[in-house]
Amino acid sequence: MSVPIELNILRQQIDEIDSQLVELLARRAKITAEVGKYKSQVGLPIYVPEREAELIAKRRAEAEQQNVSPILIEDLLRRIIRESYHTQNVEYLCTNSQIKKIVVVGGAGALGRIFVDMFKRSGYSVQLLEQHDWPHADSILSDAGLVLVAVPIKLSESVICKLTCLPLDCVLVDITSTKQKPLAAMMAVHAGPVLGLHPMFGPDVPSLVKQIVVVCHGRHAEQYEWLLQQIRIWGGVLQQTTAKEHDDAMVFIQVMRHFCSFVFGSHLASENPNLQQLISLSSPIYRLELAMVGRLFAQDPALYADIIFDNEDSVALLTEFSVKFNQALALVENNNKGEFIKQFYKIGSWFGDYSKQCLISSRKLLLKADDDRSLSEDR
Amino acid sequence: MSVPIELNILRQQIDEIDSQLVELLARRAKITAEVGKYKSQVGLPIYVPEREAELIAKRRAEAEQQNVSPILIEDLLRRIIRESYHTQNVEYLCTNSQIKKIVVVGGAGALGRIFVDMFKRSGYSVQLLEQHDWPHADSILSDAGLVLVAVPIKLSESVICKLTCLPLDCVLVDITSTKQKPLAAMMAVHAGPVLGLHPMFGPDVPSLVKQIVVVCHGRHAEQYEWLLQQIRIWGGVLQQTTAKEHDDAMVFIQVMRHFCSFVFGSHLASENPNLQQLISLSSPIYRLELAMVGRLFAQDPALYADIIFDNEDSVALLTEFSVKFNQALALVENNNKGEFIKQFYKIGSWFGDYSKQCLISSRKLLLKADDDRSLSEDR
Repeated sequence: MSVPIELNILRQQIDEIDSQLVELLARRAKITAEVGKYKSQVGLPIYVPEREAELIAKRRAEAEQQNVSPILIEDLLRRIIRESYHTQNVEYLCTNSQIKKIVVVGGAGALGRIFVDMFKRSGYSVQLLEQHDWPHADSILSDAGLVLVAVPIKLSESVICKLTCLPLDCVLVDITSTKQKPLAAMMAVHAGPVLGLHPMFGPDVPSLVKQIVVVCHGRHAEQYEWLLQQIRIWGGVLQQTTAKEHDDAMVFIQVMRHFCSFVFGSHLASENPNLQQLISLSSPIYRLELAMVGRLFAQDPALYADIIFDNEDSVALLTEFSVKFNQALALVENNNKGEFIKQFYKIGSWFGDYSKQCLISSRKLLLKADDDRSLSEDR
Repeated sequence: MSVPIELNILRQQIDEIDSQLVELLARRAKITAEVGKYKSQVGLPIYVPEREAELIAKRRAEAEQQNVSPILIEDLLRRIIRESYHTQNVEYLCTNSQIKKIVVVGGAGALGRIFVDMFKRSGYSVQLLEQHDWPHADSILSDAGLVLVAVPIKLSESVICKLTCLPLDCVLVDITSTKQKPLAAMMAVHAGPVLGLHPMFGPDVPSLVKQIVVVCHGRHAEQYEWLLQQIRIWGGVLQQTTAKEHDDAMVFIQVMRHFCSFVFGSHLASENPNLQQLISLSSPIYRLELAMVGRLFAQDPALYADIIFDNEDSVALLTEFSVKFNQALALVENNNKGEFIKQFYKIGSWFGDYSKQCLISSRKLLLKADDDRSLSEDR
């Protein structure tokens, strides 16, 4: 079908504006690269929430004056800012230049590698300690100022127990996704400063900006404050808690969701509906829910087995979930809509304002998912 | 803390560029408004996938030449394009100017209202038929060219059964979220053209652009082709299926997910963990999963009760889910990681390439969720 000339003229004007947008982005990137360079020289943090908020507020006001949606300009700026966070920094200020050496045990692993990279880009001397290095562990560890344990959950405690001869002023840190046992093991094996961390992100993050790192203090916090400051400079957001509180929360956050996704996938595979049809008939919210289940099975089963099976509270909590499931099922069997609605309101009041927030945020997110429909189409 | 002068100069340059961005958007919006006006005059569809793809491809190429991330420019353009879809059209071409009147039964309801609005903006004469109008139904319906039934699921069939005296050439359509029973009821009550639709979106969509509408043909399709074309002009994406296939798919898509979210919420509320802490310790993927559960409880319980309770297959499917849940739980109780991993791979192969796609799409989406962290913070 040929395009009418009137439409073509308008489209050319749009194309010209979009080309100017590309130029604008190129100019902006050059300036933010300079900002990044300057910040790394003087040791200022990459992510400054106040500056970000102020920048956006000013542009929103301008947009309103010019009849442009303030939500649109905010969305665009946040996307542009994200890009600049992830590209502007190749180097970071070093918060502890006196430390001789950092040893990352398991530093060749997916998550360990990120920390090795970040330490190196901050000017630290970093050495890896992998499985085959254990015969020489004593010499590798003898002058370490920081030892970071980044091995799979199931190996974490046994590896920690081997770290018997660290220098007394060496900081011992782990990044295991459970915290009580590894932290206790570190406290037992090492008399110096001890810290438990749980980075709440996967190995595929483009940078640490805005990523959550859970902090469980062990001993002599003043001797590893520089490390926490270093993570802040990388852009990380620290959340402090106790090891017990952390582990209790993780049963809900990790075990329950992964297990339910597993069962959902298992149920779908055994009922065997036409997947392509399910996807094509799904609205964005269902496509997203299906994607949350589907994505699990593209990942490492051993990791999820460890997370689910190695938590002592899993069985009790999952059993309780099963009880709740059957109670709700009985309501459907007995056609007791009234009780279902009553419970619905009760649960809603437990969630409080959060459920309304969820609705608003997920709506925003679904609109973004709509933009390219990659959740629904083969590409 | 005062900002160093070097940094301040760079920030001013960024602010200037961002102001130019606002101007660019204002100019672009004026042109796309003209495009919208032109298209509605000549009856061209708002959403033209090829033009969108071409526009983006050209700007991606330019971006690469200027060292700008092509993914960045694509994300920005898609967001800008979405905005223009939703704002550029106030009026649409009418695909059937000969039709005398459209009656929307339940047109004051949330979803009915959207259709009333779209019909009016396309130049149709629209009349509502609400509960209190039934005494005068005969006169309201006597000259209707299209009757659209947009009432709650549980009322759908009984309302359809009352439409006994429609003109023979009147098109009878419903938008109930189940299809077999309403379609059968329409076929029984009316000898003229009959069509079942299921709009796969909620009442809060900003427009119909890219929204899926499921089409289940009833009778005399040639007499309602204009309506399908009208929905396409509004930007809707039509997916054709049979009423049986539709209902089978919806048990999986709607019943299962809503029920599981309900149970998950019920379980959380009864275990009563500290919700604020769960959120603060959650990585983006868990915040999103929690939000998918939380959002349910900000919505109308009666709607979800109807969806779950009124589907004949619910009990059988949920019972089977419960069996699968307990089988998986037994694996955890018996510490049978090997079998868990084996099943994980088997389910993964059922999902096929889709699970990898899900991982990629959800990663993109999570980065977007990261941008503003509104999923995690009180605001």
